[in-house]
Amino acid sequence: MNLSIKQKLKEIVGEENFTDDLIELVPYAYDASDHDHRPEAVVWPTHKEQVSQILFLANAHRFPVTPRGAGTGLSGGAVPVQGGLMMDLSKMNRILDMRIADRQAIVEPGVVYADLENALTPHGFFFPPDPSSSSVCTLGGNVATNAGGIRGAKYGTTRDYVLGLEVVLPEGQLIRTGSNCIKSASGLDLTRLFVGSEGTLGVITEITLKISPKPFAIKTASASFSNLGDAGQSVIEIIRSGIIPSALELLDENTIRVLRDQGKMDLPQVTAMILAETDGYTDGEASFQMDKVIEVLKRNHATDIRIARSTQEAEDLWKIRKSIGSIAAQLRTHNVSEDVTVPISKIIDLMTGISNIVHHYGLPFVIFGHAGDGNLHPRIMYDRSNPEQVEGLRKAVEEIFKLTCQLGGTLSGEHGIGLAKAPYLPLEHDSMNLNLMRAIKKLFDPNHILNPGKMNL
Amino acid sequence: MNLSIKQKLKEIVGEENFTDDLIELVPYAYDASDHDHRPEAVVWPTHKEQVSQILFLANAHRFPVTPRGAGTGLSGGAVPVQGGLMMDLSKMNRILDMRIADRQAIVEPGVVYADLENALTPHGFFFPPDPSSSSVCTLGGNVATNAGGIRGAKYGTTRDYVLGLEVVLPEGQLIRTGSNCIKSASGLDLTRLFVGSEGTLGVITEITLKISPKPFAIKTASASFSNLGDAGQSVIEIIRSGIIPSALELLDENTIRVLRDQGKMDLPQVTAMILAETDGYTDGEASFQMDKVIEVLKRNHATDIRIARSTQEAEDLWKIRKSIGSIAAQLRTHNVSEDVTVPISKIIDLMTGISNIVHHYGLPFVIFGHAGDGNLHPRIMYDRSNPEQVEGLRKAVEEIFKLTCQLGGTLSGEHGIGLAKAPYLPLEHDSMNLNLMRAIKKLFDPNHILNPGKMNL
Repeated sequence: MNLSIKQKLKEIVGEENFTDDLIELVPYAYDASDHDHRPEAVVWPTHKEQVSQILFLANAHRFPVTPRGAGTGLSGGAVPVQGGLMMDLSKMNRILDMRIADRQAIVEPGVVYADLENALTPHGFFFPPDPSSSSVCTLGGNVATNAGGIRGAKYGTTRDYVLGLEVVLPEGQLIRTGSNCIKSASGLDLTRLFVGSEGTLGVITEITLKISPKPFAIKTASASFSNLGDAGQSVIEIIRSGIIPSALELLDENTIRVLRDQGKMDLPQVTAMILAETDGYTDGEASFQMDKVIEVLKRNHATDIRIARSTQEAEDLWKIRKSIGSIAAQLRTHNVSEDVTVPISKIIDLMTGISNIVHHYGLPFVIFGHAGDGNLHPRIMYDRSNPEQVEGLRKAVEEIFKLTCQLGGTLSGEHGIGLAKAPYLPLEHDSMNLNLMRAIKKLFDPNHILNPGKMNL
Repeated sequence: MNLSIKQKLKEIVGEENFTDDLIELVPYAYDASDHDHRPEAVVWPTHKEQVSQILFLANAHRFPVTPRGAGTGLSGGAVPVQGGLMMDLSKMNRILDMRIADRQAIVEPGVVYADLENALTPHGFFFPPDPSSSSVCTLGGNVATNAGGIRGAKYGTTRDYVLGLEVVLPEGQLIRTGSNCIKSASGLDLTRLFVGSEGTLGVITEITLKISPKPFAIKTASASFSNLGDAGQSVIEIIRSGIIPSALELLDENTIRVLRDQGKMDLPQVTAMILAETDGYTDGEASFQMDKVIEVLKRNHATDIRIARSTQEAEDLWKIRKSIGSIAAQLRTHNVSEDVTVPISKIIDLMTGISNIVHHYGLPFVIFGHAGDGNLHPRIMYDRSNPEQVEGLRKAVEEIFKLTCQLGGTLSGEHGIGLAKAPYLPLEHDSMNLNLMRAIKKLFDPNHILNPGKMNL
């Protein structure tokens, strides 16, 4: 990117929305993954026309453009691995409309998840995918990565809530996909082709989201297990019983120990814990489901079953789950968080397998995740300055991915593929599938300027 | 298709699974729409390898292939408008697996919706999209058209339940898309590109469906309105109140009159009726929601509110809604059924507009539909041998589509575009959008052999 290009970028977005100062570029080398690469410049577009002009320019001069929201991604999707221009969309952050009777919220991509949540709450509605980074992550990033969260088993992921998009294609043309209706069967589904495409097919400039009424009756409980198999059998039997808890979280013994030792939490010395939440309009509905859950847990030898009797007690139980990330992060400077996902009935096979693999390489780890949709988050700690540990981590992660695919699983339940998982995509998808994805990428982005190096495209 | 091609087809599928007898070709000229065109031959493949070989042959000799399930489509999607080969997938009708704890059913495309429903019922699970042709339609057709049904507002449409597919691409290659997990954020979403693609991008040979627990507590009610605006305001206020009824059906005054006069039903002389259903695990949950619905209905001057006190009474209320299709069909030999859909708050604008348009052309009609997701089904009767009525119908339908798009709507909520709506697609999607759809079609099907003439591709 020479001076003339930089000058043109300044003309497009204005001096105040451009930088190539080293000190300002450094934070844009990172997202929340373990990867980094510095861009040559950063722009903060404030209007879709600017996005269009920038991409037009990028095609004319063949420089890479990496779109980015809050940079909370865990797979390196927003790391500008080939340099070039970083396009930060966080200034396009207006909630354009909330049409409650139409069950729609229309937003710009830079709106923070929590800001939409706060705006919807007075209406009794919410946008259900609830990533753990919800206080800072942007909706554009949620759509680009098809983000999920703790309530995915019952409420699905971002994909299920995107009705339509306005997108600037890689060559600069603006298109609208989908519709303003709750349902549509009109034409090829371009909308969901963009959802989860991680900024490789276009830059999202407007999102029409489906919103849902927020349940107000909630029951929360936790249970402990001395036998991991009993925890897994509980998950299977809960689903088979026809109850889909709004959350069904599983914690391994390392997680429990870390929370007890580092987090000073009052937790038993057990092999596994389950946290469950049920919901509905009425207390009776939430209780009916929770009673079934408790019945299953007891039948499978759960101990220390705690049922929250108040909002405060429920919050205390959730604090256990929500503290894991920050407490685990303190254990060692570097760590990676995966989101491997398998069919629900295979969750214990995956957990046991991951434990054995990481154990073999002698790295500290915790495993927790969303058992209700088969999604585990192994978090592996290591020292990046120690080549042996770096290599051990690489091998462990590769083995985890292989195991996941052997169990019929997917490399990513909710974080996306990005940079981190790109080399492993052939483990999950056959070459015909990958070739078709690449052909679509080429069709949309013939000069390969938009977020290159991601998703094995 | 010359004799040598026909001979090769016989070799692929066996003599018993091929025909070019006129008497057997005739029914394959039709689906449930108002369009027809006879194929030159029909094959009934029984295995994906046969599908692959047929498409390979079709590319070598450039003959069109039209895939088809039960032929219940209402948009002409399965009418072989350019002749060639009809590929009837109804013999690939095995339920391959039901993994209840994984929330999955794996089926071949020819499985009838009701057969899967019957197989899932003992487990307490169901596949929620519930097209009114459920007793005969096939799941392959449901996926190809992204079929919906009465419970779409609460449970969504087919798209929300397809986890993965096995597809034979137009040139004969077999690919697997998606995963066996409840959620995945791995690679471009090819699965949903095939969902709703109406057999233009590939032939589906296996479907992995997400299944859900079937609610067992249900409340049903009906209400009448002398003022259409009150009915519309009720719909708006029900959604705003945070209740998403599992069904919220709206009937116009013509529908009510036809049911009363032709169907001999005990119905009041009113302008509109609403049928509502709420559900949950518990009676209390279903009642809580129904109480809110009734409250809204009363506030908006509903009369003759009937609440079903038994399963029999509920069935009697549903009989009203479910009889419409067959009773209206008796009114005149020919009729078309549309599925225009608008944002929920615009449902009365659409209903009034349609009434005015069809009235203007002097054709008998009824309008009913799924108010909970903004989807109306105007059914217009006409005499196909009367050129004036044929032309009136054409103009009326075009004006209905224009009005729908002016109201921010979509040409199709659940039937698909097919042949019938193909010319009108530019009313809804801009040229950039259509060009991108066509480019994708060309990428998948360079020789344009698969279901040509559909969806304006």
